[in-house]
Amino acid sequence: MGTELLMGQIVNTNAAFIANQLALQGLVSHYQTVVGDNPDRLAQTMRTCLARCDCLIVTGGLGPTQDDITMETAALVAGRRLALHQPSLDVIEGMFRGRGHVMTDNNRKQAMLPEGCTVMPNGAGTAPGAILEFEMDGKSKAVILLPGPPNEMQAMFLGQAAPYLAGRSPYAVRNYFVRMTGIGESQAEDMLKDLIAAQTNPTIASYVSLGEVMFRVTQFARDAQEPDRAGDLVREIRRRMEPYVYEVGLRTMKEVAADLLRERGLTVSFAESCTAGMASSLFGDIPGISAVFKGSIVCYANEVKTSLLGVPESVLERFGAVSEECVIHMANGCRKAMNTDCAVAVSGVAGPDGAPPDKPVGLVYLAVADASGYEVRKMNFPGDRARIRSLAASNVFDLLRRRLLRKS
Amino acid sequence: MGTELLMGQIVNTNAAFIANQLALQGLVSHYQTVVGDNPDRLAQTMRTCLARCDCLIVTGGLGPTQDDITMETAALVAGRRLALHQPSLDVIEGMFRGRGHVMTDNNRKQAMLPEGCTVMPNGAGTAPGAILEFEMDGKSKAVILLPGPPNEMQAMFLGQAAPYLAGRSPYAVRNYFVRMTGIGESQAEDMLKDLIAAQTNPTIASYVSLGEVMFRVTQFARDAQEPDRAGDLVREIRRRMEPYVYEVGLRTMKEVAADLLRERGLTVSFAESCTAGMASSLFGDIPGISAVFKGSIVCYANEVKTSLLGVPESVLERFGAVSEECVIHMANGCRKAMNTDCAVAVSGVAGPDGAPPDKPVGLVYLAVADASGYEVRKMNFPGDRARIRSLAASNVFDLLRRRLLRKS
Repeated sequence: MGTELLMGQIVNTNAAFIANQLALQGLVSHYQTVVGDNPDRLAQTMRTCLARCDCLIVTGGLGPTQDDITMETAALVAGRRLALHQPSLDVIEGMFRGRGHVMTDNNRKQAMLPEGCTVMPNGAGTAPGAILEFEMDGKSKAVILLPGPPNEMQAMFLGQAAPYLAGRSPYAVRNYFVRMTGIGESQAEDMLKDLIAAQTNPTIASYVSLGEVMFRVTQFARDAQEPDRAGDLVREIRRRMEPYVYEVGLRTMKEVAADLLRERGLTVSFAESCTAGMASSLFGDIPGISAVFKGSIVCYANEVKTSLLGVPESVLERFGAVSEECVIHMANGCRKAMNTDCAVAVSGVAGPDGAPPDKPVGLVYLAVADASGYEVRKMNFPGDRARIRSLAASNVFDLLRRRLLRKS
Repeated sequence: MGTELLMGQIVNTNAAFIANQLALQGLVSHYQTVVGDNPDRLAQTMRTCLARCDCLIVTGGLGPTQDDITMETAALVAGRRLALHQPSLDVIEGMFRGRGHVMTDNNRKQAMLPEGCTVMPNGAGTAPGAILEFEMDGKSKAVILLPGPPNEMQAMFLGQAAPYLAGRSPYAVRNYFVRMTGIGESQAEDMLKDLIAAQTNPTIASYVSLGEVMFRVTQFARDAQEPDRAGDLVREIRRRMEPYVYEVGLRTMKEVAADLLRERGLTVSFAESCTAGMASSLFGDIPGISAVFKGSIVCYANEVKTSLLGVPESVLERFGAVSEECVIHMANGCRKAMNTDCAVAVSGVAGPDGAPPDKPVGLVYLAVADASGYEVRKMNFPGDRARIRSLAASNVFDLLRRRLLRKS
C-alpha cells in the first residue's frame, strides 16, 4: 500500500484509525511513516522507527504479489527466518476451495511467517498478521504486522492487536465522550479552561468536526478498582455545557435523533432545497432507519416547492425561496405529502453563484413541523458550498432532536 | 497539526494532496512522516528526512500559538536566524484591521521568517509560507514550508510551491486521464497488459475508486517541443476500452452527465429508495446544477412510492419494491411528478437486515425514463451497506449518461 499512498492514489485512513485506537488505549504514538514497496527503504525505515519506539505497527504489504515484502522484511530486521505456517496455509487453501478457485503459489507465500511469531488469523482475507517480539540493541521490541485493506486491518486490530497492546499497557483506561453542537471549539474550551489547565489524570482532549465539538475524557487507572474520577469530570463538563451537549457516549447526532423517533414511535420526512438530499442520504446510512424515515422531497426548483409541497406562489414571489415563510410552508407541506408525524425543511444559499441580491451566501432557513406546530431556525454559515450544505444538513438533525426533546 | 494526526483526530489529506501533485509533476516522493509539535523530535525528523531527499515539504505548525514551531525549527536545522519580515507583518496587520480586530503579539511571530528564504504570501490566512535553500553535508537541500489548513495549503502549493518545483524539474510533464466505469481494475489492466508491461515513458498508473478505474498516462518530455507520445497511447487505451470510458480529462461522471443535460437543454429528477437521496446530494455538489436538476423524491416507504410516484399497489404486492416493474413505475412517475424531461429511479437491498426472502443484499434495480421510453439495469453489488448505496448512486449517473449519449 505504501506506494499507492506515495502516489496520492489513496488517503491514509489506516494511520488515523490506528492512531485513534492507540489514543483510546492511552498509548502514545510519536511518529507515522509512509514508505514504498522497496526492500532497502522499508528495512531501513523499520530500523529507524524501532530505534525510537517500543512497538512498531505496520500495515500493508502482506498480499500475494512480488511487491508485498513486509513480512520478509520484518523477519530480516528481527533476525528471524521465514517458515511455512501450516495452519495459515490450510486456511488460505480452504478459502480458495470455498470460492471454487485453485490456490496459486503466490498465495502460498502468505503462509510463510517469521519463526517464533504470534500468528493473527485474518477473518476477512487471505493474509495472516503477526506479532514479532525480539531484542534490538539490548532492548525488547515488538512489531505488529497487519494487512492493508481497511476492513481486514480494523478487524484484526480490534480483535487481536488491541488486546495484545492492552496486556502490555500498565493502565486500565476509562474513556468518556461528550459530544456537543451549536458551539465553536475555542468558545467551548474557554468555558472549560480551568478544567483543561488543571488536567493531569483524567486528561481532556478535543476533537472538532463540521458543526460539532467532542471532548474525550480519559482516566489512566492502575486497575479497574480505582475510583472513577473521569465520570465526575464528565458530569462537570456536562453541567457547564448543558445547552450544547447532545450525547455522552458513542452515538452521532443523527443516531440520537433516530433513537428519539423510535422511542416515541414517530415518523419523519425531509424537504430539502440547498442540501439537495444530503440530510436524507445521511439518515439513510443508519441501518433499519426505514422504521421511522418515510422519505423526502428534494425541491431544487421553485416549481417543485409549489407542486409537491404546496408552497403558495405568492410566498415565493413576496419572500423568496430562502425565507422563514417558505421553509414553514415546506415543512408543513412535506409532513402532509409524506404523511409523517413530523417534517424538517431546509432552504438556503449554498453559493458560489446565483444568490438573490438581498440574500448572502451562507444564509440558511430551517423549519420543523409536527402536529402541535412548528419552529424556525435562521443560520449564517461561513465557508464554501460543500461546508454550507454540510452544516445545513447537520442542523436538520439538531433541529429535529431539540423539537423531539422539548415535546417529551 | 502533527499532534492531531498522531491522536487520530484528523485524516492526513494534506499528504495525499501533495503526493498526488508531485506525481502529476513527475516528481518521485519516497517517504511521508508525521511528527508531533515537539521541538526535539521535529528537528531530528527534519534532519532524518533531509538526509534522504533533495527537497522536504512540511505542512502545518505555522500558526500563532506556542505549539506552532515549524518555522523556527526549520531555521534551526538550516542554520539560519529568524528575522522580522515587514511585508508579511503588514499583511497580517491589514487582515486584523479589515476584520476590526487588534493584532496580538502571537500573530507577530508569524512574520518572523528565516533569513534569506523565499517568502510565499498566504492569500487565505495569516501564516506566510517559505522556501529555504541551504547546504547540508555538502549537498544542496530545499525545505518548503506550507500552512496546515487544507485550503491555505492547497492554494499556496498550486500557486507558488508547484512552479518552484517545476523549475527544478528536468522535465516538461504531460498528463492525460482516462476515466472508466463498469469494469474492475484487474480486468482493465488485463486488457492493457501489453501496454503496461512495455511502459517506460510515457508511464501508465491506475487509480481505483468506488465503481471507477482511472488510468493516468504521463510523458516526461525534455521540453514542450518533444512530440506528444502520451496522446497516442491515450488514443490506443481509449480504442480498447471504448465501452467503459466516460471521460478523457478531468470531469467526474456526474459532471459529464450534467454537461450532457446542459448541452441538450434537458432537465432531470431522481426517485431514490435505497440510496435515500445520495445521488441527489452528489448532484447538488455541482455549482449551478439547478439549471438542469429540478429535484427528487426519496421514497423509503412503499406508501410514498404509491402516493407520490404512482407505483400501483398491485406492482408492489406482486413484484415487491425491489423489482424491474417497480423502478420503471418509479422513473415514469417521478418524471411526471417533477415535470422533467427525464428521470432516474433506483431501488435495492442495501442491508444488512430487512431483505425480502427472495432478494439478496446488494440487489439493485435502476431505470431511466424519458419522452421516448425507458431502460432498466439490474445489478448485484458486493460489500456493505455504505458500499452498496455508493455504487447504486454511481450507477444512477452512468445510466443517465448512457441514455443521453444514445439519444443524441
